[in-house]
Amino acid sequence: MSELTHLDAKGQAHMVDVSAKSVTARTASASASITMQAATLKMIVEGRHAKGDVLATARIAGIQAAKRTPDLIPLCHPLMLSKVSVEFEPDTALPGIRVLVTCKLAGQTGVEMEALTGASVAALTLYDMCKAVDKTMLIGDIRVLTKQGGKSGDWVFDA
Amino acid sequence: MSELTHLDAKGQAHMVDVSAKSVTARTASASASITMQAATLKMIVEGRHAKGDVLATARIAGIQAAKRTPDLIPLCHPLMLSKVSVEFEPDTALPGIRVLVTCKLAGQTGVEMEALTGASVAALTLYDMCKAVDKTMLIGDIRVLTKQGGKSGDWVFDA
Amino acid sequence: MSELTHLDAKGQAHMVDVSAKSVTARTASASASITMQAATLKMIVEGRHAKGDVLATARIAGIQAAKRTPDLIPLCHPLMLSKVSVEFEPDTALPGIRVLVTCKLAGQTGVEMEALTGASVAALTLYDMCKAVDKTMLIGDIRVLTKQGGKSGDWVFDA
Amino acid sequence: MSELTHLDAKGQAHMVDVSAKSVTARTASASASITMQAATLKMIVEGRHAKGDVLATARIAGIQAAKRTPDLIPLCHPLMLSKVSVEFEPDTALPGIRVLVTCKLAGQTGVEMEALTGASVAALTLYDMCKAVDKTMLIGDIRVLTKQGGKSGDWVFDA
Amino acid sequence: MSELTHLDAKGQAHMVDVSAKSVTARTASASASITMQAATLKMIVEGRHAKGDVLATARIAGIQAAKRTPDLIPLCHPLMLSKVSVEFEPDTALPGIRVLVTCKLAGQTGVEMEALTGASVAALTLYDMCKAVDKTMLIGDIRVLTKQGGKSGDWVFDA
Amino acid sequence: MSELTHLDAKGQAHMVDVSAKSVTARTASASASITMQAATLKMIVEGRHAKGDVLATARIAGIQAAKRTPDLIPLCHPLMLSKVSVEFEPDTALPGIRVLVTCKLAGQTGVEMEALTGASVAALTLYDMCKAVDKTMLIGDIRVLTKQGGKSGDWVFDA
Repeated sequence: MSELTHLDAKGQAHMVDVSAKSVTARTASASASITMQAATLKMIVEGRHAKGDVLATARIAGIQAAKRTPDLIPLCHPLMLSKVSVEFEPDTALPGIRVLVTCKLAGQTGVEMEALTGASVAALTLYDMCKAVDKTMLIGDIRVLTKQGGKSGDWVFDA
Repeated sequence: MSELTHLDAKGQAHMVDVSAKSVTARTASASASITMQAATLKMIVEGRHAKGDVLATARIAGIQAAKRTPDLIPLCHPLMLSKVSVEFEPDTALPGIRVLVTCKLAGQTGVEMEALTGASVAALTLYDMCKAVDKTMLIGDIRVLTKQGGKSGDWVFDA
Repeated sequence: MSELTHLDAKGQAHMVDVSAKSVTARTASASASITMQAATLKMIVEGRHAKGDVLATARIAGIQAAKRTPDLIPLCHPLMLSKVSVEFEPDTALPGIRVLVTCKLAGQTGVEMEALTGASVAALTLYDMCKAVDKTMLIGDIRVLTKQGGKSGDWVFDA
Repeated sequence: MSELTHLDAKGQAHMVDVSAKSVTARTASASASITMQAATLKMIVEGRHAKGDVLATARIAGIQAAKRTPDLIPLCHPLMLSKVSVEFEPDTALPGIRVLVTCKLAGQTGVEMEALTGASVAALTLYDMCKAVDKTMLIGDIRVLTKQGGKSGDWVFDA
Repeated sequence: MSELTHLDAKGQAHMVDVSAKSVTARTASASASITMQAATLKMIVEGRHAKGDVLATARIAGIQAAKRTPDLIPLCHPLMLSKVSVEFEPDTALPGIRVLVTCKLAGQTGVEMEALTGASVAALTLYDMCKAVDKTMLIGDIRVLTKQGGKSGDWVFDA
Repeated sequence: MSELTHLDAKGQAHMVDVSAKSVTARTASASASITMQAATLKMIVEGRHAKGDVLATARIAGIQAAKRTPDLIPLCHPLMLSKVSVEFEPDTALPGIRVLVTCKLAGQTGVEMEALTGASVAALTLYDMCKAVDKTMLIGDIRVLTKQGGKSGDWVFDA
């Protein structure tokens, strides 16, 4: 196992120099889940208008947060995402909603932090919209699912 | 179970009117956890400098994110936090780090979204700093632990 | 007609001192409209999913922009909105969509800039989502419709 | 007429994938106008100091807003503007002020949203600075005037 | 000499709890200076248009930065400034420009950080606008000049 | 001495067109210093925890501010920093702390404003954390130390 790259030789945080890394196409996908009462899930899923606006609001929040990652995560490099998508999958077994975010760019650093941040904020937005009816929700399963591009090549989370 | 307050009668998202709510002292605490390999945890905990900077960086990111909650979560009201603290508890059983965020203000809305957002971003920052050495980390356990103040009174998460 | 209050005695821009103004309930509503081809309007209005997401996206953008007004309009005071709503009314006569934003707070300054900014950004977001199919859209009718509260009392735009 | 590109096959908003588009020089110009009482226009135009600061303030607000477009318009891609200019033309016939914004970059997406956002915010800033003396101002004529570069080539608004 | 209040008992940074402090009127003024070649100063001061725009641009940047202080300085509390002014005084003896920023609010914390941040960013903006013609400018004299209000009462810097 | 490039032919501020400039590797370093009482310096330097968190907090603030430069300095171009480092050097002779920030990117404009902004905000953050124990601190020595890359080539400040 190597060292923590975000600390310099003196153990101080810095934004690492990526200027020598090559620009390649990079994609990453990440997940999050929000567990809620079955009745809460039903409220989100049923009803045409409600569904549109609850999930659409969380989707926009996730896309915006992915773009704002370098402003939120101190040592992330600024980068220009060329694609962000946020998908929701209601899961009655959970019960709750699974969030899947995919980010893409041509750049010098990976985009897994952008995908993770988008998934987290999309889940937090669902929490916010449902908290008046359900006080015991739980957000979890925030992890990178796949990574493509860059020096380390393709990678798939093996649960 | 009542309705989703963030949707109006037509099912459209809006920022609800809180102007008639009384200004009271409100506190909320929220948790998050990040599970990692035992060796990764050891790298963070051991070594004077590293520990200072890894945890201090995540702490600052969490405090900043709590303040930026209304900018991230679309239907949150702007508010003026009077206190934010971010605590980390290394847990070798996990193995990983537990995050505890407490927010406080005198205002018309609760501060649980601020505490949840702070905890999430602190955990994401830890992820970012360790991802070069550990690709299988998982963030979870994001939940509200306690709430005080407001119409609904005190509340403690009962696991 | 009095002077431009945002300029001091030397003609220099400043953020005027409102500390002596009383805190009162204040509401403002503002409009915007976006004129488009009839076929474009039809694409937005028809279809369950599309309608949900096009208008929901613009609604969230408008709410977020209203909150961010002091960051966009240099001499606006920071303030804490207690309510924001964004309504859309498709108008086949235009043809296009009318936007109506209402903002509310208890504070020392009016909220018409917040309502105007929310309406403008909601309309710009509609423009962005339709620009691939319609290059000749036009945004206009951005004006304050009503104001309540504050020293100058209630006011209604008299066209 | 084709489909709304900002919606995926399921009608959900997403930030479209532009990674396969070529990087070309792109320019766009957009307009806005603010109609006011003749006396208000006179106050802005006359007087050395006032003119400098009213128009300079609005110019800076417009430039800043153009840069912040991806943060305001949810599905806009982040991009790096290489030029922004904001021009004002007092028009006694209106009476009021015409705003012209030009943006430029080498990139994978057009910059008309940046020009439109800059023009809108510059006009809103003029509104803010004059609203104490003129309650019936109106912002309109927000449209793209010209576009150059990209797959669709040069384009000029034909009124 | 007491302790560093921004560190808790374990030496960890936190945003201190101000909820028990009383809301009082608070004012602070701060200075900065930028030293430049005499010829650079002459370019700024002479010429009607240039002067307007160089100083007006820096003034707006300073006002905006003062409002954004809690977003820039990690442990600053969010607050709602009720007044910000930025003054420039060309000084041929320096040679250069002196910056004076005054901030005011009714709140639970002092506003000296807002005044200092506004003065710093106004000076940095002057630097940016002149750096093509003068590579050896120096920014200094950033200090609090006066403070009024709050528990510690009035205070004047005694050089 | 040439003209102020940030003003156009009419003396109006604009964001200059850099699209014709070549993309080259660019580095800049800048300094700041904060002068304080010897006892204040001792409080920062001594003690394991305190040192970690005071300096780590200021380091993160400086890195974040460098990334946010185009949002703070109106006429700065957006750019994507590939490296930022913030170093602190306690100086008992001052007495106080010297700040050194280095920024790097491959781009069309220099990065000295990013280095200067990072150094200024790091120093302001130190000020904020110590102001409760020391009211007479002074920030100064904000200057560019070295520049590399770009048309004008390498440059070193010659005091």
